[in-house]
Amino acid sequence: MNTSRLRLAQLRASMKKNNIDAYIIINTDPHLGEYIPAHWRIIQWLTGFTGSHAIVVVAKKFAGLWTDSRYFLQAEQQLSGTGFSLMKLNVSSEPSWTEWLSEKMKKNTRIGVDGRIFSIQHLDNLKKALDGKKVEIEINCDLIVDIWTGRPPMPDSIAYEHSVLFSGKERGEKIKEVREQMVTLNVDSHLLTSVDDIMWLLNIRGNDIDYSPLLLSFALVGMDQVLLFTDEKKIPLKLAMEFDKSGITILPYSEVSMILARLKKGSTLFLTRETTNSYLFNSISEKVNIVKDFSIPGRLKAIKNRIEIENIQRVMVKDGVALTRFFYWLENNYKNRTITEQLASDKILEFRLQQADCTGASFSTIAAFKEHGALAHYSPTSNSDYLLDKDGVFLIDSGGQYLDGTTDITRTISLGFPDEQQKSDFTLVLKGLINLAMAKFPEGTKGYQLDVLARKALWDKGLNYGHGTGHGVGFFLNVHEGPHSIGGTLNGNQDSIEPGMIFSDEPAIYREGNYGIRLENMLLVTDDKISEFGHFLKFETLSICYFEIALINKSLLEPYELNWLNDYHSAVYERLSPLLTKEESSWLKMKTEEI
Amino acid sequence: MNTSRLRLAQLRASMKKNNIDAYIIINTDPHLGEYIPAHWRIIQWLTGFTGSHAIVVVAKKFAGLWTDSRYFLQAEQQLSGTGFSLMKLNVSSEPSWTEWLSEKMKKNTRIGVDGRIFSIQHLDNLKKALDGKKVEIEINCDLIVDIWTGRPPMPDSIAYEHSVLFSGKERGEKIKEVREQMVTLNVDSHLLTSVDDIMWLLNIRGNDIDYSPLLLSFALVGMDQVLLFTDEKKIPLKLAMEFDKSGITILPYSEVSMILARLKKGSTLFLTRETTNSYLFNSISEKVNIVKDFSIPGRLKAIKNRIEIENIQRVMVKDGVALTRFFYWLENNYKNRTITEQLASDKILEFRLQQADCTGASFSTIAAFKEHGALAHYSPTSNSDYLLDKDGVFLIDSGGQYLDGTTDITRTISLGFPDEQQKSDFTLVLKGLINLAMAKFPEGTKGYQLDVLARKALWDKGLNYGHGTGHGVGFFLNVHEGPHSIGGTLNGNQDSIEPGMIFSDEPAIYREGNYGIRLENMLLVTDDKISEFGHFLKFETLSICYFEIALINKSLLEPYELNWLNDYHSAVYERLSPLLTKEESSWLKMKTEEI
Repeated sequence: MNTSRLRLAQLRASMKKNNIDAYIIINTDPHLGEYIPAHWRIIQWLTGFTGSHAIVVVAKKFAGLWTDSRYFLQAEQQLSGTGFSLMKLNVSSEPSWTEWLSEKMKKNTRIGVDGRIFSIQHLDNLKKALDGKKVEIEINCDLIVDIWTGRPPMPDSIAYEHSVLFSGKERGEKIKEVREQMVTLNVDSHLLTSVDDIMWLLNIRGNDIDYSPLLLSFALVGMDQVLLFTDEKKIPLKLAMEFDKSGITILPYSEVSMILARLKKGSTLFLTRETTNSYLFNSISEKVNIVKDFSIPGRLKAIKNRIEIENIQRVMVKDGVALTRFFYWLENNYKNRTITEQLASDKILEFRLQQADCTGASFSTIAAFKEHGALAHYSPTSNSDYLLDKDGVFLIDSGGQYLDGTTDITRTISLGFPDEQQKSDFTLVLKGLINLAMAKFPEGTKGYQLDVLARKALWDKGLNYGHGTGHGVGFFLNVHEGPHSIGGTLNGNQDSIEPGMIFSDEPAIYREGNYGIRLENMLLVTDDKISEFGHFLKFETLSICYFEIALINKSLLEPYELNWLNDYHSAVYERLSPLLTKEESSWLKMKTEEI
Repeated sequence: MNTSRLRLAQLRASMKKNNIDAYIIINTDPHLGEYIPAHWRIIQWLTGFTGSHAIVVVAKKFAGLWTDSRYFLQAEQQLSGTGFSLMKLNVSSEPSWTEWLSEKMKKNTRIGVDGRIFSIQHLDNLKKALDGKKVEIEINCDLIVDIWTGRPPMPDSIAYEHSVLFSGKERGEKIKEVREQMVTLNVDSHLLTSVDDIMWLLNIRGNDIDYSPLLLSFALVGMDQVLLFTDEKKIPLKLAMEFDKSGITILPYSEVSMILARLKKGSTLFLTRETTNSYLFNSISEKVNIVKDFSIPGRLKAIKNRIEIENIQRVMVKDGVALTRFFYWLENNYKNRTITEQLASDKILEFRLQQADCTGASFSTIAAFKEHGALAHYSPTSNSDYLLDKDGVFLIDSGGQYLDGTTDITRTISLGFPDEQQKSDFTLVLKGLINLAMAKFPEGTKGYQLDVLARKALWDKGLNYGHGTGHGVGFFLNVHEGPHSIGGTLNGNQDSIEPGMIFSDEPAIYREGNYGIRLENMLLVTDDKISEFGHFLKFETLSICYFEIALINKSLLEPYELNWLNDYHSAVYERLSPLLTKEESSWLKMKTEEI
């Protein structure tokens, strides 16, 4: 019998025992973040599906897994024979999971969810879908704990201090700033559920999660003390003593709900709607006033301080050296050696790890040759891995975690001779990147206003890309960080762009079944000038790596775009060449020659 | 005694008699539109203030008039000695009128408003401001009718047929289309409160209002008949017979509230939140379901049909001839004759009226010399009127109403020799106009996405303008028409841009106390191409009139912008010269020469 079928049967037995007619599982953890530890990969354990986006609904005679179009093919393969049906998200002919439940759940039935991995938003949507039906939702329902034998334990990495030489601000100072805003907002306590907010606030890091240096924890900031909910054994004594001096008290991870339940009646609690799970939310007394917004540390950490900016500028040089060495190695070896997408991914990490204070990759490298590049989120697997041979476009989107900053960069290069369409596409994407990078704009400008600058050259030719243009980037934290972003929709992108924010700038073209071209630099928001018309801002390009000249159709560039490119290339060479070998340096000279 | 003081005393006496502690008047009419007939200019009669934006609050010991920064200077002069204080809108140190009322109204007092000129929105805001206070709002309170002697009567122009040769679609067809959408929306009747919607739907026009060819009326579209609320004597017999054939019944203007009160319980009524007054709204039974959105005819009329487009393209030639003659006349006469801003305004209308089917101006001409140009909404008055003499920048924003279309165009020219800043400013504004005009974009793009294209050249130099970039334009109807617009805020600008829509494209720079530069063309949205990335749209420039070359700093134009300008100028000459005298034509040749 298929393992998944067995586990499904066990789950159904447990449902029967607990009088549950349908059980919902969302692929997330109690912090509702982007990367989740093995302990919470329930869906992978239950169904075998490894994609990041999944919702499972198990009923008596039905078991379905909802995922989006990125994963349709993969899900069909991985779910085969498991007893789970693939349900396609955002396909109008198929019901969403809430629609399915709304249609199928009979009167006086019960739905079970583990509220720890079910957001307030999900719960609201579910309640709405079931409105008027007599269906009960049991939200403290963990049917997995008893049936998952050999479950990976909760991550148990040890916290470490993130030096103020990197972070630029003492934890005491940060806590003070948060409290000042709490006073302004008339708030008594602030629940922090996003782990990166806690890391930033306390100047600590951990290794609980792949790619992001996080220590799983919750925090409750009050006016007199900060409660940090995490296992005491994860905090070294020296750090614990430092915490003690700053009024930070360590309590067990699981006690956060109990502390929330005991908040003073009539007091006001600030929390973040998107990252607070229903279990925690429901443990708060109804007599407590709740203010929901993006977290205060979240907004503060989006504005990088002077020291952080100086650090990230230095990191960019290191990252640029690693990238240059990687592309030099690739170009000199792909004809003679067996280089696959996977090997390229390993190699780019190897070059980064040679740099000072690099701790690893900031996300799973997207190394995509030929038509793989048209899949925006492709990562090579042993099944799909392509050999990089001649005449193809190779897209590599990668990043590094350094103690002194996080990087995220995409380059697309050509092995062999690119054709005219590839050159035209590349040049149009480059124009988009350049025009956003060159933007100047008044204070108060929102991300939705600038998006078109990265798309205009593509739109002019009837081309486009189906994702946003820019996301925030953390500082030795998550590679995707809010609240700010640049895109054409009003789903996000409504926050004002402020000096000190960092954005990615990543326009693209995806030619399905053929190739993908994406280019990405990181941008820092800085002051431009103050005139009678107001305070103007601009971007400073942070990333330092050449663009493939062989893929440029120069006739498509306006003079000012050509100037930008030549100036950028000259700066890339100047800043990196002192750190390269003679051979690498002459090669980079050629790669950055004026066109 | 000052007339206004006397009237204020009469109003206070009436307030006392009616047990009203504060009386609110908004400068609008029962249709809540942009231009209002003399009958409803209560604030002008009461206070002497002639600006378009005003709210008056009269209490026992206070009388205030709220207006915005455009009118601060004018209001201070006009309100002097009247007993009314100027209250500044959107100035953070001054209370808004709702804040004032919220602060000053004591328990158990009563506020009176004439619900016919008080929007649902205003009423909601007022109720919100008074929430928790025991203040009563009497919304059927007309204290003016008894004290305004010699009040201008309601306008009594006669309706006339707007030929299908112009409108391109029979009224029967339009009514059918509205009903089809009503069926889709599951709506039984549709209240039309915006007069231009009614004109469009019924293919009629009138002369009740300055600048817009409107016949004051309400309409209620049902599934079987259309009720038109207007004085029967305003509808000529022949038109009435046509109406009869199409199931259109004429009822007295004032009966709309009675009919609304009698709507079937449980039926669904569609209305527009922004243009439905509180009196009408409150006459609807609570048992009627109400759907609020932008009106169905409003959305339909925004998409011009093929015949309308052909007409407006022909109108642009006529308008271009009139404009060319005007500028030719101005350039040849300003040195020798006494030409004032007011004379220029009269003259541009005179040239327009020489063209076939022109019925007048589409709004009050903005003819602004030197520093007057920095006031975005300036109109010359006998006090302010400037003589156009040498060495100054002259901004003229004007438009015509033609049976076959409405125009709106702004040009800024230089008398004498412009300085370098004027040339640079003009060129940056022109770049903005060109870049928006050249935009191509996918279906579904919103106005807020394209706004930056018109501002980018200005932002690059730390310049900006404080208004939106583009508004819809009616077809022989209001010069400002919704729902579509282009601007950087989310206050409007959220509607998808669709083929057949017309926009203005009007970036600007205002140098306070010095000069203003605004350039405006009208744009038509058309299809660009369909690619694997979707359906793309573009703009076609409608307006045909040269830009002042003497004000251009060519070195600031990119090659593609210069090409656009030269191509445009060559088309302007080609299309207009056959209709001009030999002298005018050679002059235009010079004005449109390649640079």
